[in-house]
Amino acid sequence: MEKIKVGVLGATGMVGQQYISLLERHPWFEVTYVAASPNSAGKTYHEAVSGRWQMAVDVPAGVNALIVQDANNPALAADKCAFVFSALDMDKQKTRELENAYAGLGIPVVSNASAHRGSEDVPMLIPEINHEHIGIINAQKSKRGWQKGFIAVKPNCSLQSYMTPVFALLQADYEVKKMIITTMQAVSGAGYPGVPSLDMVDNVVPFIGGEEEKSENEPHKILGKIADGKIVNDDSIKISAHCNRVPVIDGHTACVSLEFGDKKPELEEIKRIWREFKSLPQQLNLPFAPIQPIIYRDEPNRPQPRKDRDADKGMAVSVGRLRKCNVFDIRFVGLSHNTVRGAAGGGILNAELLKAKGYFD
Amino acid sequence: MEKIKVGVLGATGMVGQQYISLLERHPWFEVTYVAASPNSAGKTYHEAVSGRWQMAVDVPAGVNALIVQDANNPALAADKCAFVFSALDMDKQKTRELENAYAGLGIPVVSNASAHRGSEDVPMLIPEINHEHIGIINAQKSKRGWQKGFIAVKPNCSLQSYMTPVFALLQADYEVKKMIITTMQAVSGAGYPGVPSLDMVDNVVPFIGGEEEKSENEPHKILGKIADGKIVNDDSIKISAHCNRVPVIDGHTACVSLEFGDKKPELEEIKRIWREFKSLPQQLNLPFAPIQPIIYRDEPNRPQPRKDRDADKGMAVSVGRLRKCNVFDIRFVGLSHNTVRGAAGGGILNAELLKAKGYFD
Amino acid sequence: MEKIKVGVLGATGMVGQQYISLLERHPWFEVTYVAASPNSAGKTYHEAVSGRWQMAVDVPAGVNALIVQDANNPALAADKCAFVFSALDMDKQKTRELENAYAGLGIPVVSNASAHRGSEDVPMLIPEINHEHIGIINAQKSKRGWQKGFIAVKPNCSLQSYMTPVFALLQADYEVKKMIITTMQAVSGAGYPGVPSLDMVDNVVPFIGGEEEKSENEPHKILGKIADGKIVNDDSIKISAHCNRVPVIDGHTACVSLEFGDKKPELEEIKRIWREFKSLPQQLNLPFAPIQPIIYRDEPNRPQPRKDRDADKGMAVSVGRLRKCNVFDIRFVGLSHNTVRGAAGGGILNAELLKAKGYFD
Amino acid sequence: MEKIKVGVLGATGMVGQQYISLLERHPWFEVTYVAASPNSAGKTYHEAVSGRWQMAVDVPAGVNALIVQDANNPALAADKCAFVFSALDMDKQKTRELENAYAGLGIPVVSNASAHRGSEDVPMLIPEINHEHIGIINAQKSKRGWQKGFIAVKPNCSLQSYMTPVFALLQADYEVKKMIITTMQAVSGAGYPGVPSLDMVDNVVPFIGGEEEKSENEPHKILGKIADGKIVNDDSIKISAHCNRVPVIDGHTACVSLEFGDKKPELEEIKRIWREFKSLPQQLNLPFAPIQPIIYRDEPNRPQPRKDRDADKGMAVSVGRLRKCNVFDIRFVGLSHNTVRGAAGGGILNAELLKAKGYFD
Repeated sequence: MEKIKVGVLGATGMVGQQYISLLERHPWFEVTYVAASPNSAGKTYHEAVSGRWQMAVDVPAGVNALIVQDANNPALAADKCAFVFSALDMDKQKTRELENAYAGLGIPVVSNASAHRGSEDVPMLIPEINHEHIGIINAQKSKRGWQKGFIAVKPNCSLQSYMTPVFALLQADYEVKKMIITTMQAVSGAGYPGVPSLDMVDNVVPFIGGEEEKSENEPHKILGKIADGKIVNDDSIKISAHCNRVPVIDGHTACVSLEFGDKKPELEEIKRIWREFKSLPQQLNLPFAPIQPIIYRDEPNRPQPRKDRDADKGMAVSVGRLRKCNVFDIRFVGLSHNTVRGAAGGGILNAELLKAKGYFD
Repeated sequence: MEKIKVGVLGATGMVGQQYISLLERHPWFEVTYVAASPNSAGKTYHEAVSGRWQMAVDVPAGVNALIVQDANNPALAADKCAFVFSALDMDKQKTRELENAYAGLGIPVVSNASAHRGSEDVPMLIPEINHEHIGIINAQKSKRGWQKGFIAVKPNCSLQSYMTPVFALLQADYEVKKMIITTMQAVSGAGYPGVPSLDMVDNVVPFIGGEEEKSENEPHKILGKIADGKIVNDDSIKISAHCNRVPVIDGHTACVSLEFGDKKPELEEIKRIWREFKSLPQQLNLPFAPIQPIIYRDEPNRPQPRKDRDADKGMAVSVGRLRKCNVFDIRFVGLSHNTVRGAAGGGILNAELLKAKGYFD
Repeated sequence: MEKIKVGVLGATGMVGQQYISLLERHPWFEVTYVAASPNSAGKTYHEAVSGRWQMAVDVPAGVNALIVQDANNPALAADKCAFVFSALDMDKQKTRELENAYAGLGIPVVSNASAHRGSEDVPMLIPEINHEHIGIINAQKSKRGWQKGFIAVKPNCSLQSYMTPVFALLQADYEVKKMIITTMQAVSGAGYPGVPSLDMVDNVVPFIGGEEEKSENEPHKILGKIADGKIVNDDSIKISAHCNRVPVIDGHTACVSLEFGDKKPELEEIKRIWREFKSLPQQLNLPFAPIQPIIYRDEPNRPQPRKDRDADKGMAVSVGRLRKCNVFDIRFVGLSHNTVRGAAGGGILNAELLKAKGYFD
Repeated sequence: MEKIKVGVLGATGMVGQQYISLLERHPWFEVTYVAASPNSAGKTYHEAVSGRWQMAVDVPAGVNALIVQDANNPALAADKCAFVFSALDMDKQKTRELENAYAGLGIPVVSNASAHRGSEDVPMLIPEINHEHIGIINAQKSKRGWQKGFIAVKPNCSLQSYMTPVFALLQADYEVKKMIITTMQAVSGAGYPGVPSLDMVDNVVPFIGGEEEKSENEPHKILGKIADGKIVNDDSIKISAHCNRVPVIDGHTACVSLEFGDKKPELEEIKRIWREFKSLPQQLNLPFAPIQPIIYRDEPNRPQPRKDRDADKGMAVSVGRLRKCNVFDIRFVGLSHNTVRGAAGGGILNAELLKAKGYFD
């Protein structure tokens, strides 16, 4: 099979670098186009990331020599790639317009940016949870007058550590009423240079701008339903999030207390549900799909970011410490890799789902 | 005024070291007696802590030459000190018996150990909150047949970051019904060698043995009332705690969500209550009492352990990020110095209270 | 090809765990025997490492169910494996005797322990440097009266970051007279629990017991020559080492200043020598041999442990910052993965060399 | 005594903040003037540092309400302060011109900046070493036509960890020929935001731009002599420095190997020299002078940054691990607080020396 040509917008930033690393040797996709700010445009990718490359592996050979294009000029991408991953890191309004412009030119956009997360005709996907939201894309295209292009996004990294476990319980018919969450988030989430080391040596910072709002609002859309050509939020879970930055490179950890509706599962039942949970990406055998989306660990002190973030190539969510809560019903700890599952890896899985379902044909 | 002679049990351990450091130049107390395990007995204190001294300042000159005594032999302390600070770190049952033995010999014990926290005739003091619990001491003495000796303890370090702020609200007549707390606790809480660095570089550990139970149970006694010669717990607040270890030297941070009873204060009212809160230690002008027990910080990203733990010599609680909670009523971040306010400094404040109230006369 | 059965002594310790992780899916070797202290003997490996497993990947399925044997009883291993990796962590004298006992029973020992590093008939191998030292094994066997068994060891982890680069220069006929080295060593080198986090948060420790002596003495044997049935040290390089512990999980970094003899290479010549350096493991295409043993990095701020330790599966040495020295001739920074190249991975490469050369036949 | 009014240039940056913190309650000096970039000018100091204040103590009350002035306009300072501390952080050429302008207007400049370190008529002071270099100031004034103003600077922070110990040996008539130094430097040296946490969690960076050159060159001036109205460098020690950044908040550590001339002291003699070393600041009893400028520690694993940086209010140099070197004569570890002794505290000591010697009269 010939590989599908893909572009990466914002290719020189940290999420862009992660896309390029993770796509090396991808069985379906091949990076043939990289675009970034005008500063980088015209340089080889090698030159453009010189001194800024943050990945633990070197730049893939095939990408090193690509000439970085100006991301502000979507026309340049037109015949160079079948779709683009957007890791644009600019003003929200400008990002939205630029992503629209790519889609308008017939280039589907699989985005990491937050710009379109609130757009009611744009699916915000965690494929194990709401894969059926891709059904909105046809409405999106016809409403916006786009022929081939469309936009699909992924949610914020902070909530990936617990939303799949919560969804598995919902799907097993246990209603969830309330959740109080405290996250301990890795520094890679802030990009490079990002968080100053003076804030992270012998310290934690109990604040991340905008993160609590995203953690509280985005689940309502993810759990929503398509109706009348738009995604209608499901606000039935009340969510409160405390978001903290801790001195960890990769891996967001979340302490979750959760209240069910009237029907309350036993702890062993919950573990069984989590361990047995599979969804469409697993059935479709998508390349980036974790074999087991939720790994429950029995050790009393797990999951831990350094030991569990890389579970199943960084795409599985690790969960542990399930126990009764004195105030709500249960509590547990969830963990996922914020730059893999929570960013570029999640974006790639979205693209795989879209490909498998024929959206790039 | 001649200084009161005091002893330190478990003087070579980390809490013991902290006592000895903090008592240097104390206006009322002078360390004249140090006791530890038989291994250390017979050595000078200097020798006994050689290679194990963890404080940022050197061993006080006056203590260096003291001969370490066997802590298992309370009779040795009998005429050497007016009371002892207990930082014993051994089996709970043995600690209880040993502390009893000291008290039985007429030596009051101001303890950091958890052994007697559950004893219903032993006050567990945070002087700003429940100073009136010292009233139980007379009942304790008569019940146990002790003439001069008695035991007073302090609670676990984890809850000091939020119990004073919560108490200030209770005292202002706002009932508190539920609390969900997530702590991020410093490594010094585990002593030395304590937490392995392989667990704390690029990592957090979402588990501390026994810590959640203490955080959930001890507040009920602290908020209790004396009745019939014992302290009767007040279980009216439901508490759930998630306790985590993070790579911070000193300073426990807590993210708190809290539900009031029917009467709910405005956020500004809460800040005012906290800022104006004073209690008996402040009125008595005790040497270790913080001028302002609760410091509310307006910066959006405070309190932080490295910047706020030393507030008012490490004895004040710093609070910030007060905001509405989507699930309960309010949420905030609290922080206190775990080895000062939460351990030796708290013990010293307890002793000062007892001294001021004539319990050592 | 049927895989060769191998045992791991000290299998539950950190180096033992690393052996077991790295040998999963090894093309030639298969772990069929695990032995440890009597405490662990009789348990499954899964049970024995429960709560102590430090690797980022889970225990390989094939090893989980193996019953841990008592390492003190070499006879148990006799027909279970073709040779053993020794990661014994006990008293030096006892280790030596125990390794002798295994060899005496016909079981070759490929050891990580320091016990036999000083034995003049035991090769201490870095295969890229002194592979010809395996030639001493026949003399060793005949002298000790061993038929099939023998002992081969690897040097300390601290020197692996610079000895291969130095050897490459020696081999290119540049005499080296003096070296002053400062290492910044990872905490994994001390095992688990190892270095307390109170020593590694906001701190470095400028001392590692015994490490400077090993760093200074072992190169003399590695560079020695076989003569009269023993390895005769080459003391021609004077070496001074400062060894420090830093808050890094894996990867030892070394700052090296080096003085040549009369013939002094240009900097560009040195880079060329390093980049072109290959040796017997590369020629034999051994499975664990790095393709390029020395990777020279041109970036001004590399190598760095987090980014370079995993180069070529953790088996390559990364070098950078080659520049003139104001006092000696040149200076540079070297880095290698201390638990892979510097421990278990290095041991596996030794075994591969011995296998390829027929020593296990 | 009425306090001397002083200004701080670059008052909002990290070194400026340190000046303002350290000068709180200074017995001689009082901050009455703060100046910074035009961005901050016109705001109160409180507003100007809001969200940027990095010190562990709050802004001193007396400074909070000062209006920040434009540092580019020296005339504004003219009658507001008797001299200024310069913590300017701008282009070297502009800094030099601006410092000249202040001096030209009659305002002495005690500077932290590197701009004038190479000026042969400007003393670069470590008061314990080269206090007599203040004698150049008269020549400076007359040559530059300045009446009251002058400039005095301090050297780079990296060398403060070992230059005083080296000088003590020189003064005891032991010639030093060669030094090879490896530093492990704290992140506070790079200011805020400074070093990204992605570079400092589980990592060290073996490079700090410009730092090695300063470490190698500045000692030659510090050890120089005044002749013909200028400071003539003493280049007799050959110095090679490797400078590394490590995850430590404050405190630069240096591993030093050193070769003497023909006369070589015994180790015990060296310790004696260090322990007895005192200089003019001690004799003058300057407020910021450490009682003992060099503290030799006998513990095998000291000095360590977290434990020793605050020795004698952060102004003493801690030394340890003195031992024979296999290549040179001796080696040792030195440590000093980079933002106190190595920056603002050092600047204050310089000002105290100048005051005591009548240069501000």
